[in-house]
Amino acid sequence: MKKHNFNSGPSVLPQEVLEQASKAILNFNGIGLSILEIGHRSTWFVDVIEEAKSLVRELMNIGDEYEVLFLQGGATTQFMQVPMNLLDASETASYCDDGVWGSKAAKEAALFGNVHIAASSKDKKYTYINKNFDVPATSKYLHITTNNTVEGTQWQSFPNVSMPLIGDMSSDIFSREIDFKKFDLIYAGAQKNMGAAGVNLVVLKKDLLGKIERKIPTILDYKNHIEANSLLNTPPVFAIYVSLLTLRWIKQEGGLKEMEKRSIEKANLLYSTIDSLPIFNCPIAKEDRSNMNAVFFIEDENLQTEFLDLCKENGMIGVKGYRTVGGIRVSMYNALELSSVKAFCDLMRDFASKN
Amino acid sequence: MKKHNFNSGPSVLPQEVLEQASKAILNFNGIGLSILEIGHRSTWFVDVIEEAKSLVRELMNIGDEYEVLFLQGGATTQFMQVPMNLLDASETASYCDDGVWGSKAAKEAALFGNVHIAASSKDKKYTYINKNFDVPATSKYLHITTNNTVEGTQWQSFPNVSMPLIGDMSSDIFSREIDFKKFDLIYAGAQKNMGAAGVNLVVLKKDLLGKIERKIPTILDYKNHIEANSLLNTPPVFAIYVSLLTLRWIKQEGGLKEMEKRSIEKANLLYSTIDSLPIFNCPIAKEDRSNMNAVFFIEDENLQTEFLDLCKENGMIGVKGYRTVGGIRVSMYNALELSSVKAFCDLMRDFASKN
Repeated sequence: MKKHNFNSGPSVLPQEVLEQASKAILNFNGIGLSILEIGHRSTWFVDVIEEAKSLVRELMNIGDEYEVLFLQGGATTQFMQVPMNLLDASETASYCDDGVWGSKAAKEAALFGNVHIAASSKDKKYTYINKNFDVPATSKYLHITTNNTVEGTQWQSFPNVSMPLIGDMSSDIFSREIDFKKFDLIYAGAQKNMGAAGVNLVVLKKDLLGKIERKIPTILDYKNHIEANSLLNTPPVFAIYVSLLTLRWIKQEGGLKEMEKRSIEKANLLYSTIDSLPIFNCPIAKEDRSNMNAVFFIEDENLQTEFLDLCKENGMIGVKGYRTVGGIRVSMYNALELSSVKAFCDLMRDFASKN
Repeated sequence: MKKHNFNSGPSVLPQEVLEQASKAILNFNGIGLSILEIGHRSTWFVDVIEEAKSLVRELMNIGDEYEVLFLQGGATTQFMQVPMNLLDASETASYCDDGVWGSKAAKEAALFGNVHIAASSKDKKYTYINKNFDVPATSKYLHITTNNTVEGTQWQSFPNVSMPLIGDMSSDIFSREIDFKKFDLIYAGAQKNMGAAGVNLVVLKKDLLGKIERKIPTILDYKNHIEANSLLNTPPVFAIYVSLLTLRWIKQEGGLKEMEKRSIEKANLLYSTIDSLPIFNCPIAKEDRSNMNAVFFIEDENLQTEFLDLCKENGMIGVKGYRTVGGIRVSMYNALELSSVKAFCDLMRDFASKN
């Protein structure tokens, strides 16, 4: 039975990326060694990281004013690494609190300086993006989560602010054409649209750095990673390689324009099906619905459990909602095929007609 | 031509581990999904991490007084994470400075408290292990590097001290039978004897924790990782899986006793060949020579370059010494076959006879 992988992350990857990765484990580029066995300072691997960086720049349409880093530790590490590098103890950073991850990011920042919550959508259980934010002009930066994986909301356009804008793009990076230049620092865990779990992309303007007094541990100082070209210590070689393969795939398929087109098509199909079937309820404000993660419910908990069981029986993986939210969550990352969304919608219609 | 992989890390892995890893990228355990596409909280992956932890305990012969964690960021992250978790600003930690890595570890600790260098072998360019250390009784802990990858020295027995003993075992973990219970905290980057780059093993006694006043960022607090069972955030799924495969392989081959036997055989063959050929010079004190990384030289730099070129021509990979040390370095991790050392010794003898 064909599996339809709606995992929220780690999640579906393109079949050809998996095939190339599998091959490289046995023999990388025909050199007679595994990708797992080559030194990270070998020209073999330096070529990998350089090509990956160059593809990131090309896909994001950004220039040399930005540095591209591949780091470890997930977005959760960035939650503290960003303020550790950018925020002095006496300064204030502003955070938009539109979900569990943004809220966690703000909590980490409070260890390093003052945190101002510029806006929150907690009042309505994070079912919308609160764009009515207030940011003191003295804020060191404004932090937003561009897509809320857990709650199913997404910023559809980005604010113009006078201070540096920082975006956690973990769950929608490379899924749409946006003006990345609006951001001064972007970070993303790889395990959704970019590759295998175990590597973070961090894209930042170098001029953000060196403006605080705190002494930063060597491994957490962005400056050191920039100087060492992401080879400060042994990087997650394989995870970076899978990112490269995925970046190549994105480019070859038509770049972010094409990813966005496909993404909108999948999301439109799913949301219109949800909205057409009264048994399903998506509480997310229509203008803020995420094209990556659709979160919705069946009011009757027993029926919902029955539906989730039915999904499992039909090879639909990863559709149970996040533990704090419940309900149903369907993630539609770049590598998810339209046919999987169609199959899921068929199942929904079938279930609705019987209940 | 067969490649002989003497890389210092990332380095050679067992062929069957590579084959299993390659398969799992296409279809993990026959479930119809790639290991790269499964959720980290799925029972599939929880089974992986639990088995890996259990094998670590079994191979190390340690009990429940120790916690086993799989973290990210390499040993360099542990350099700061250890003192951040264990050392208050007014306290002192002792470090043995027997090489570049121990020296870097001490430097990071100085950001968090006072550092006492208990012994150093810097006086003789780190060509021996200085066992003549002095540790103040009030030291919060003593930190040693059990094997110096760069300089080619190794602790052959471990000190008895009254304070917690911490070991960076990145380059000799699982290579020999030792009394791991002498240590209170052990850490090791995976990319040598344990698996793929991108995961760290940290084994620690829980009672070390909670004894300082510093507020620790969520992701850097060992306590949080213990409570979350190494699933605090998305872990490096694939790197942990490769570690599991390697741990299984170690057990199946006969455990640490057998790894040690093979390791001694390989090292004895190499060092006796070096010592028998006057053109090669190993400056490392005999009793401190590493069974993992042999560091040696040809005095005439031109001849040395000629020899390194010859190695390359003969498929001997990764034998150039570390950039700050120079010379020749031959790494002989668990997965390196005796036949590779034999081939290398043949090449040395051949070269010596002609020069």
